[in-house]
Amino acid sequence: MAFYQSGDTIVALSSAQGSGAIALIRLSGPEAISIAESVFSKPLSQKPGNSVQFGSIKEDQRVIDEVLLSLFRAPHSYTGEDLVEISCHGSAYIIQELIALFCKSGARQAEAGEFTLRAFLNGKLDLSEAEAVADLIASDSRSSHELAMKQMRGGYSKALKDLRQSLIDYAALIELELDFSEEDVEFANRDMLQNLLKDILLKVGSMRDSFHAGNALKQGIPVVIAGRPNAGKSTLLNALLNEERAIVSDIAGTTRDTIEERFVLNGTSFRLIDTAGLRDSSDAVERIGIERTHHELKKAGIVLYVFDGSNTDPATLQQDLDSLETGAAHVIPVCNKTDRMEQHPNLKFGAIAGVIGVAAASGHIQHLLETLSSIPDTIKANQGNLLVSNMRHYQALANTAAALESALSGLDSGLGGELLAFHLREAIRHLGSITGTIDADELLGSIFGRFCIGK
Amino acid sequence: MAFYQSGDTIVALSSAQGSGAIALIRLSGPEAISIAESVFSKPLSQKPGNSVQFGSIKEDQRVIDEVLLSLFRAPHSYTGEDLVEISCHGSAYIIQELIALFCKSGARQAEAGEFTLRAFLNGKLDLSEAEAVADLIASDSRSSHELAMKQMRGGYSKALKDLRQSLIDYAALIELELDFSEEDVEFANRDMLQNLLKDILLKVGSMRDSFHAGNALKQGIPVVIAGRPNAGKSTLLNALLNEERAIVSDIAGTTRDTIEERFVLNGTSFRLIDTAGLRDSSDAVERIGIERTHHELKKAGIVLYVFDGSNTDPATLQQDLDSLETGAAHVIPVCNKTDRMEQHPNLKFGAIAGVIGVAAASGHIQHLLETLSSIPDTIKANQGNLLVSNMRHYQALANTAAALESALSGLDSGLGGELLAFHLREAIRHLGSITGTIDADELLGSIFGRFCIGK
Repeated sequence: MAFYQSGDTIVALSSAQGSGAIALIRLSGPEAISIAESVFSKPLSQKPGNSVQFGSIKEDQRVIDEVLLSLFRAPHSYTGEDLVEISCHGSAYIIQELIALFCKSGARQAEAGEFTLRAFLNGKLDLSEAEAVADLIASDSRSSHELAMKQMRGGYSKALKDLRQSLIDYAALIELELDFSEEDVEFANRDMLQNLLKDILLKVGSMRDSFHAGNALKQGIPVVIAGRPNAGKSTLLNALLNEERAIVSDIAGTTRDTIEERFVLNGTSFRLIDTAGLRDSSDAVERIGIERTHHELKKAGIVLYVFDGSNTDPATLQQDLDSLETGAAHVIPVCNKTDRMEQHPNLKFGAIAGVIGVAAASGHIQHLLETLSSIPDTIKANQGNLLVSNMRHYQALANTAAALESALSGLDSGLGGELLAFHLREAIRHLGSITGTIDADELLGSIFGRFCIGK
Repeated sequence: MAFYQSGDTIVALSSAQGSGAIALIRLSGPEAISIAESVFSKPLSQKPGNSVQFGSIKEDQRVIDEVLLSLFRAPHSYTGEDLVEISCHGSAYIIQELIALFCKSGARQAEAGEFTLRAFLNGKLDLSEAEAVADLIASDSRSSHELAMKQMRGGYSKALKDLRQSLIDYAALIELELDFSEEDVEFANRDMLQNLLKDILLKVGSMRDSFHAGNALKQGIPVVIAGRPNAGKSTLLNALLNEERAIVSDIAGTTRDTIEERFVLNGTSFRLIDTAGLRDSSDAVERIGIERTHHELKKAGIVLYVFDGSNTDPATLQQDLDSLETGAAHVIPVCNKTDRMEQHPNLKFGAIAGVIGVAAASGHIQHLLETLSSIPDTIKANQGNLLVSNMRHYQALANTAAALESALSGLDSGLGGELLAFHLREAIRHLGSITGTIDADELLGSIFGRFCIGK
């Protein structure tokens, strides 16, 4: 991506490709208004910003379209520049003719993300807010929408800026000490400095660690359905999806490939992953399937451990749960086939916490659905407003934390002031890269290349 | 399609479906502004028409999106009603949430074409202009765009209204004569009446007959490539398309199925149709192919009659051209393989008009391309502004002409005044149906059902 040549005016189709009643074309830059005026049927130079004109666009004597033209004057526009939005008939031919005409009149085709890049460069958005615009457009559930909206509206940037400010204040304190080190003046004692740094590290670390949860809310929480063969895992998957997705049979070991399906519950996406039943098997294909189950369990956010309530005793269940190797924050023992049990599951498995009874084959899974749908709120409540959902931010936070740890261990071992200051500067730089307080072409390219053309 | 319930406010996505930077949602009706205001972050009731506001749309406390909201006040809007356009982020989730919110707030989802229907019912467009909006959105070449644009901007309606007015004036003259018939007063002599009617019929007939050409310009002019086997028809098709579309071999009878491809030259679409070579064949499949060639020739707008210049003598060519059964307005004898000829084609075939030399295999087809690209202008010049491209209009014009012919033969045979008046009323009614001077639910449904939702 060739970067910001100030002085030129860009043009692109901003609404979706394809046939629609209306299409929207945007022009941004110093010549946006004069270029539009040169082909429009009415004078524009005296029109106020935020006004709409109806008229026709002509090339020589040929009318290309009758359009609505909205005018925005710098800095009161999305990009912070003069901006013209043209709402034309949604014909591919008309769109192509209009964009060609604007290019002939002095504009150039915009690169992907270039409108938002200009908004960033003109200080209308910081980097993390700009990234949230792309996330917002891609959002497909209430949770991912909520994350992106919070980030775009700056709540997240505010927290990062506060954190960065406390690091800068801290660094200033250290530099001051350095200046006076010969004179043996102590502005803050070492213990106090250490506690201050530990406090900042704690906050950075907690933001970094929220990535797992934040990313799950954005991409869908991975829910692994595991258990012994014939416990009814595939039947449960089908019941949750309300369709016959997985093949179900009485034969143990029916499922071998892992099956993954998205499913939105109460505004949050879940990625349901049905797996091969856990047992020692002599069948080679089944053994590969079981290997995959173990792999999925490690990456899971939630595990639904399904067992057949009618033929499982509590001791075996406890043993199975204890031997489960998973990184999931939530493991839910799901007691299936309650309709074939003589006892209520709570009576039989009372000693094991959180057992939920279902009869998957007849679709009785209401209690499980309620439990699942409460988990996103738990995640959000645990993390406050500071959920990190962007891989670039996660890496920057991890780098910040690493630099802070170096500084902290330096303090412990009596590291020289200059080296301490170096680690602190590193931490400040990494934290600043999230909102774009530092910039580099490489960084910008990697962010704005994700956008679609016209944004 | 349930029709116009005045009093309700409609909402729809007006930009194309799919992911884009921006999407456009329209609200139209008496409550459009108050519904928008009830969820928007700023008051709207005092804002002037044709103004744009930036703000956020909230449901309860949750921000759904930050949007640009354009306000249009009746009657200065596309529909002639109060109209609000919301330009939001192009996420399918946000679009769905916003439309659901507007529906909760009192709007209902618009039917296909309902915005344009309201524009028609409020007198912003007549019927033929409204139909042109759909044609404009579907237009995919300069010629189809030009036809639709002329029709939308009313040039066509003006001609129809003038024609209708002269019929009404004529009918008034007849009715006047009827009133005074007992008194043997003659306001206009029969010969004059007859000449007047003949003149109107001539104009209606010429518009009706322009449908063939108008429809060809809209849908693509059918160009049939015909000729004897091995003349190089498929080679010519490939050269025109600049790709290896048809299988080419030295074996006579290679092409059996007709092959059809669209191709845009100088702003006009052509439908190129390659056919089986014309000869007596004993091969059953080839015979079916030759049958199809005859069928295509009848429907052709242009025939490219291809022959091998190196082994065809002028007399045979003249014979072949004479025996060609086609309805095409243009038959172009294309002399192929000029690179293997000793003489210049103009010398060898000088006696036959309009022969064009090509060497299709080596891509020398420039002269043919020039001839083809001049044909649309010839069509437009012949027909003036009155090209009919809509099947409904064609039928209405044909009905008008039929009624006028009945009136005319009635004049000849001394038909009674009442019957004459009946035929004239029929003619006026059919002509009026094109611009919607008469209306019927059935007629409206068939027109507006063609639109996409949101228009």
